[in-house]
Amino acid sequence: MPNSITPKLLLTIILLLCLHIKTNAQNADAPPNFIIIFADDLGYGDLGIYGHPTIKTPHLDQMAFEGQKWTNFYVGASVCTPSRAALLTGRLPIRSGMASSKHRVLFPNSANGLPASEITLAEQMKKAGYTTACIGKWHLGHKKEYLPTNHGFDYYFGIPYSNDMDRLQGDEYKDYWSRNNEEIKTEHFNVPLFRNTEIIERPADQNSITTRYSNEAVKYIKEHKNKPFFIYLAHNLPHVPLFASKEFLGKSERGLYGDVLEEIDNGIGNILKTLKEEGLAENTIVVFTSDNGPWLPFKLNGGSAGQLRAGKGTTWEGGMRVPAIFWGPDHITPGSISDMGSTMDLFTTFSKMAGVDLPADRQLDGYDLASTLFSKEKSPRDHMIYYRGQEIYAIRKGKYKAHFSTQGAYGQFGKRENHPTPILYNLNVDPSEQYNIAEQHPEIVAEIKLLKEKHSSKVIKVKDQLAERE
Amino acid sequence: MPNSITPKLLLTIILLLCLHIKTNAQNADAPPNFIIIFADDLGYGDLGIYGHPTIKTPHLDQMAFEGQKWTNFYVGASVCTPSRAALLTGRLPIRSGMASSKHRVLFPNSANGLPASEITLAEQMKKAGYTTACIGKWHLGHKKEYLPTNHGFDYYFGIPYSNDMDRLQGDEYKDYWSRNNEEIKTEHFNVPLFRNTEIIERPADQNSITTRYSNEAVKYIKEHKNKPFFIYLAHNLPHVPLFASKEFLGKSERGLYGDVLEEIDNGIGNILKTLKEEGLAENTIVVFTSDNGPWLPFKLNGGSAGQLRAGKGTTWEGGMRVPAIFWGPDHITPGSISDMGSTMDLFTTFSKMAGVDLPADRQLDGYDLASTLFSKEKSPRDHMIYYRGQEIYAIRKGKYKAHFSTQGAYGQFGKRENHPTPILYNLNVDPSEQYNIAEQHPEIVAEIKLLKEKHSSKVIKVKDQLAERE
Repeated sequence: MPNSITPKLLLTIILLLCLHIKTNAQNADAPPNFIIIFADDLGYGDLGIYGHPTIKTPHLDQMAFEGQKWTNFYVGASVCTPSRAALLTGRLPIRSGMASSKHRVLFPNSANGLPASEITLAEQMKKAGYTTACIGKWHLGHKKEYLPTNHGFDYYFGIPYSNDMDRLQGDEYKDYWSRNNEEIKTEHFNVPLFRNTEIIERPADQNSITTRYSNEAVKYIKEHKNKPFFIYLAHNLPHVPLFASKEFLGKSERGLYGDVLEEIDNGIGNILKTLKEEGLAENTIVVFTSDNGPWLPFKLNGGSAGQLRAGKGTTWEGGMRVPAIFWGPDHITPGSISDMGSTMDLFTTFSKMAGVDLPADRQLDGYDLASTLFSKEKSPRDHMIYYRGQEIYAIRKGKYKAHFSTQGAYGQFGKRENHPTPILYNLNVDPSEQYNIAEQHPEIVAEIKLLKEKHSSKVIKVKDQLAERE
Repeated sequence: MPNSITPKLLLTIILLLCLHIKTNAQNADAPPNFIIIFADDLGYGDLGIYGHPTIKTPHLDQMAFEGQKWTNFYVGASVCTPSRAALLTGRLPIRSGMASSKHRVLFPNSANGLPASEITLAEQMKKAGYTTACIGKWHLGHKKEYLPTNHGFDYYFGIPYSNDMDRLQGDEYKDYWSRNNEEIKTEHFNVPLFRNTEIIERPADQNSITTRYSNEAVKYIKEHKNKPFFIYLAHNLPHVPLFASKEFLGKSERGLYGDVLEEIDNGIGNILKTLKEEGLAENTIVVFTSDNGPWLPFKLNGGSAGQLRAGKGTTWEGGMRVPAIFWGPDHITPGSISDMGSTMDLFTTFSKMAGVDLPADRQLDGYDLASTLFSKEKSPRDHMIYYRGQEIYAIRKGKYKAHFSTQGAYGQFGKRENHPTPILYNLNVDPSEQYNIAEQHPEIVAEIKLLKEKHSSKVIKVKDQLAERE
């Protein structure tokens, strides 16, 4: 052991001082920058910090340790299109017409998309003078009028819908649910890659797409470091078919699925490094989460919900509870948060942080999480409503969740069951939804039933934007 | 943001300097102190850092972040007695007679225990001049000649077998498998509490026992800080029946099971704090792990194996893979380690670190993990043998695990199935053991079969120490 000030200690002190000087280069009064990193079909159990044994996500683990790891964080729907609408509008997708009674998501032949009348988080940020970028998968309408640049984003680089759509050989891929995705080639999916409103590549080279998205974010940060920015980085993976660039292919112990996540994690490392190098780390909030649970019918090409039940497409916890990590060295008080939060809360929380009024002419479904993020006070969110399409299948109030209907994932276990006496779970003690306690707690079942009626009575019927196809 | 050296920054620098001065108070040449903290029936998915959503284990999480979190770490058997024998002898329990064809563990009427001819890790430490303490559950023989003080420990404070044994009203508790443990009172279990070889309390007050164990460890550290010490702190919880002290009862969101873990975690916080205050942190290695997986038939009074299959008493991963965290600020290189390790490796690793020769007259089953702990080099362990009693049910070689027989937990799902063609899983990609790939990899099945034969041919038949009862 050393006996005096060692080089290592000196270095630590110098580094601390440097960091300090770097901080001073920023404008202390500027509102924080926001980066939302959204994974696609990533399950609750797929990150190291959420318990996966072999997927290595050191940068996400580090973010969680330095920031907040939320363990009861929900999406607005258990599939892509409505979940993304919920995040960007701060509203349940039923309110914007993005929850459908006919189709679960938008397809390349869908006629519509997110209505212009909806106000996105990007539009909110524009009101506060932010520069805004959407990088990655959109899936809220592929026609020009629905693209990100018509929804508040100054810049768009990405694909307009899921990476498994626009199959060149439709018939050949009819059975791809049961195939090993390693056989699937990127050119079999004629997915276009957009820059703003122009297609710059078709089919998009999906092998390199994850790293290209991360690099776009790094470039955007560097080019816009002198004004507040909002970056919505929506990776289109690990949604099947899975692809990884050469540097990552075959490197993860978990196989292709792990390769994909480790490539995403590597990109996050580069983004955090850039923020630190540019002196922006202290004034940027980064959130990492997923659009819904793992797509379990794809077996090892799909992810894991850990100890949560079921996955994508269902209203079980595995379908709608996702990892969520908030990072911001100067803002977020580190810790593990088991209070409830939702992607819909980001609209409210970030609007308030940026000093923008919330739209007064419509019903929002978000809460301001700032006091939890900054001071670890109790989250204002006390309930979650689990829609499947246009119907409420379950509601969580506090620690209790009542299932009115249950059903398996789309394309599998499809049979719907209605529960005249709802199934009731205490999610705090029974996160795997195993032990029905409805009989012991009729008063809670009654309370949640009432909440359902009250909520439903106030939902205004709007046009189903997913129904029409061309 | 600040414009010059702030009080906060100054404080950080001063703290760093203080820490540095503290470090110098130690003897740099002393071998490290060792503390093994062993939980009872804690599952792979029960800690925050291993993915549990509502059990808060901030001190264990911190240990994992500052140290190494192992994700493929195994016990020597899936139940108490043989698992403890494996840890303390560095040998598979079949070699010491602690794996039985008749009973799974020792009972209050068992005639024998760990033979005197076995060399324990404590005896190894004594050779290097360590002071040694066993605090907590022993379960390697309750008669005087088998107690810790006759197996290399200078000091013993704890209970001699499981906390559910010695039931005062035997008949009343016949059905306690299916009962809510909150109804169970500590005085219904006539378990004795020992100090050294004397019973100092009977029945042991289990409500306060967890904190008393932790306090004993803190006291032992303070009283023995001037010589190297080895503390084996084997909590008898969260084995059912569950108990927590008043300070923790009803505090965890997870219910009684969570209360218990949060009390254990709190004690770990006190132990780490003591090590830091006494200037010992830089020269102490702390390991936290569990004796086997969660006891699933007890439902919410048992734990969770996370995404691993099954639990305690089985040779599925949930039975034998456990959380394992290594902490030692000046020794352990931080990170997540997915290489294999085992409780049996602690004997070899710590013996070598302490400069003690390994016994040359017997077969050990451990490996020296030092290069992985210190330099993150590949673990020397490349296989695990899964015994159930005296029989090999499965073997893992590298990432592949072959099941020769499978069976449910004791007391439930008891039917044994033999597999003439073993079931084969790739645990790296399929940690939940869902997709049998034996057909695709006959060469690996053959290799593991050969390993089984080779291993079995060298195992010397010894007396079954669990068989006889009085």
